[in-house]
Amino acid sequence: MNQNRFSFSLLGKDSSGARRGRFQTPHGSVETPIFMPVGTAAAMKAMTMVQLKETGAQIMLSNTYHLQNQPGADLVEKLGGLHKFMGWDGPVLTDSGGFQVFSLPGKTVDDDGVTFRYQKGGEPFRLTPEESVRIQNQLGADIIMAFDECVEFPTTHEYAKNSLKRTLSWAARCKKAHTREDQALFGISQGALFEDLRKESVQALVDIDFPGYALGGLSVGEGIDNMKRVLDFTTPWLPEDKPRYVMGIGLPEDIFVAVERGVDMMDCIIPTKYARSATLFTNVGKLRISNREFRNDKFPVDTNCQCYTCRTFSRAYLNHLFAGNEILGSILTSIHNVHFYLDLMRRIRESIEENRFASFRDDFMTLYNRRDKRQKGRRKPKKKG
Amino acid sequence: MNQNRFSFSLLGKDSSGARRGRFQTPHGSVETPIFMPVGTAAAMKAMTMVQLKETGAQIMLSNTYHLQNQPGADLVEKLGGLHKFMGWDGPVLTDSGGFQVFSLPGKTVDDDGVTFRYQKGGEPFRLTPEESVRIQNQLGADIIMAFDECVEFPTTHEYAKNSLKRTLSWAARCKKAHTREDQALFGISQGALFEDLRKESVQALVDIDFPGYALGGLSVGEGIDNMKRVLDFTTPWLPEDKPRYVMGIGLPEDIFVAVERGVDMMDCIIPTKYARSATLFTNVGKLRISNREFRNDKFPVDTNCQCYTCRTFSRAYLNHLFAGNEILGSILTSIHNVHFYLDLMRRIRESIEENRFASFRDDFMTLYNRRDKRQKGRRKPKKKG
Repeated sequence: MNQNRFSFSLLGKDSSGARRGRFQTPHGSVETPIFMPVGTAAAMKAMTMVQLKETGAQIMLSNTYHLQNQPGADLVEKLGGLHKFMGWDGPVLTDSGGFQVFSLPGKTVDDDGVTFRYQKGGEPFRLTPEESVRIQNQLGADIIMAFDECVEFPTTHEYAKNSLKRTLSWAARCKKAHTREDQALFGISQGALFEDLRKESVQALVDIDFPGYALGGLSVGEGIDNMKRVLDFTTPWLPEDKPRYVMGIGLPEDIFVAVERGVDMMDCIIPTKYARSATLFTNVGKLRISNREFRNDKFPVDTNCQCYTCRTFSRAYLNHLFAGNEILGSILTSIHNVHFYLDLMRRIRESIEENRFASFRDDFMTLYNRRDKRQKGRRKPKKKG
Repeated sequence: MNQNRFSFSLLGKDSSGARRGRFQTPHGSVETPIFMPVGTAAAMKAMTMVQLKETGAQIMLSNTYHLQNQPGADLVEKLGGLHKFMGWDGPVLTDSGGFQVFSLPGKTVDDDGVTFRYQKGGEPFRLTPEESVRIQNQLGADIIMAFDECVEFPTTHEYAKNSLKRTLSWAARCKKAHTREDQALFGISQGALFEDLRKESVQALVDIDFPGYALGGLSVGEGIDNMKRVLDFTTPWLPEDKPRYVMGIGLPEDIFVAVERGVDMMDCIIPTKYARSATLFTNVGKLRISNREFRNDKFPVDTNCQCYTCRTFSRAYLNHLFAGNEILGSILTSIHNVHFYLDLMRRIRESIEENRFASFRDDFMTLYNRRDKRQKGRRKPKKKG
């Protein structure tokens, strides 16, 4: 890795353990902690890249598994790489395909790699560490990920141990196969919920030496308490001077849990996926804008939000768009949700700089849970004595 | 009508008969000839109003029939009117609902109005001239339309004559019912393809006196030659100092036909509807971007186009988006098609100002038809001797 192109600066730490940093990439720097919106197939699902930039996005994520299937990495490379292909000039991260491939039924795993069929198209395909890196080299993201086995939840210690052995040998092979100096290859820790395996995993990855470390195998149904536990014992083994990325999280409450435990980067499809099904994040909790209660509501989604949607439209208008199945409904809710997440990260960074992360988290979560509590109360009236 | 709020200036005429004008409304002026993009339910189907403005749109159109069904004019009025509701501060035109209602099966027409059921929801509803104007007053568009019977094609002289009688009495009732000085009510000529009826229609409307005149009952399957004929004999009877609007056209070839015959305003769902099914307008003809031939195509949709889509993306990228059913595909093609139409109108206005409309039309159509001809030739190879 070219040290001039990539560098991580730890700018400061909050007394809670939350870190404030900056990761430099060839396409600009990323202020951490950061949330990375996901554009799976080299496209945000209902937003242009101009709109993504306006939400405050600094970096976005795309998927090797999907892109190799359609349109293929050869074509993306031929057309000038992922940034040019999708019209985004900021930093990009691609995952390795490991997560998707290991979720497929009917795959065959051996020590060299995985053979599977694409769910869409059904074509048989073989992915090895070398092949995943080669594809990611072709795609040309700023940050690329090692090819790993993402172990299901729940699993046994035995399975997780054998799988980890393979994942670690694959990590070394990925590093060896990686050729582009303008891309940073991150290692991925596995080991399920087992402390000894997570320790082994991190130590081995640090021995190989990566410019950043991810925690995989979380956000797979283990629950927030298990995630806390794994983060509690794993992050202290990670080097302070490298960025830490927890893959696939999450809801605002998960983000606070991760940041407090020294995580710098997160990604999830939640803000855009929820948006398309009319669920909006606000400072007073989630709301389902298609609900009848918003039909006549003249207020914006979130009165404190500065996104285009909240500056311009009423809840009644968004309710109307979903009632009519208008594509614009998904566009405007996606803009809001992504903006909400990125603004939350901005406020988190500010709170770390001012050493008040814990109180910001408590204040945020109290307000955020109020609506959910009220709704739960409404739905389930107390039984009369 | 308040003369200060609305005024039409005929700025010049081309030797072909094409007119260059300007229509002033309370939300800004419209340079004519103009094409009005359609946002049926107070929303462009896959674009924000910011994106619509960026395409060069000066005025957009919305539909009384749909808006009264969902969310209802009462609510739109309560929320500050159509402009505020949908976040568009430029001029807006609403049609009267006549076209939609008369396309419905199972409607009952009498001299006072029409009773029908909404296809969506099935609620019975009665629309009269007074009710249509009242709804349009509530919606608050800059230009509103008289409630008319849009006669099907083909029809008999007898049916068209009886229908016209009703439509003309409705036009007078609309004018009487109209209360808002900040809205211009346009009359609508009917009379199918019959010269005597079109003449009667226009003369009666001019006697009532409207700030603008529309031709309805065209673009209903009569074909371009019939449309030419009707425009040829109808437009000369219209006053020179008022804008003329042909409803529901059309394709670029239809627009040239109308403009040459002195038409100032047009609207159609074609650019956005075609966009969502991957059909793109270019200077060398229409192309279906989902076709296999564009899979590896590194060029923009139209190399001469300055829209966001053409400045940023390859045909291959758009092909990829449609292959993956990405909403972004519809967004980017809608932006392109609407921009293409509005840029065509800009070039038409320029050609009229420079008295070269006919040669511009010929040059445009020659290039525009080239691709279609080539494709037809390809599809249907000559039989061997």
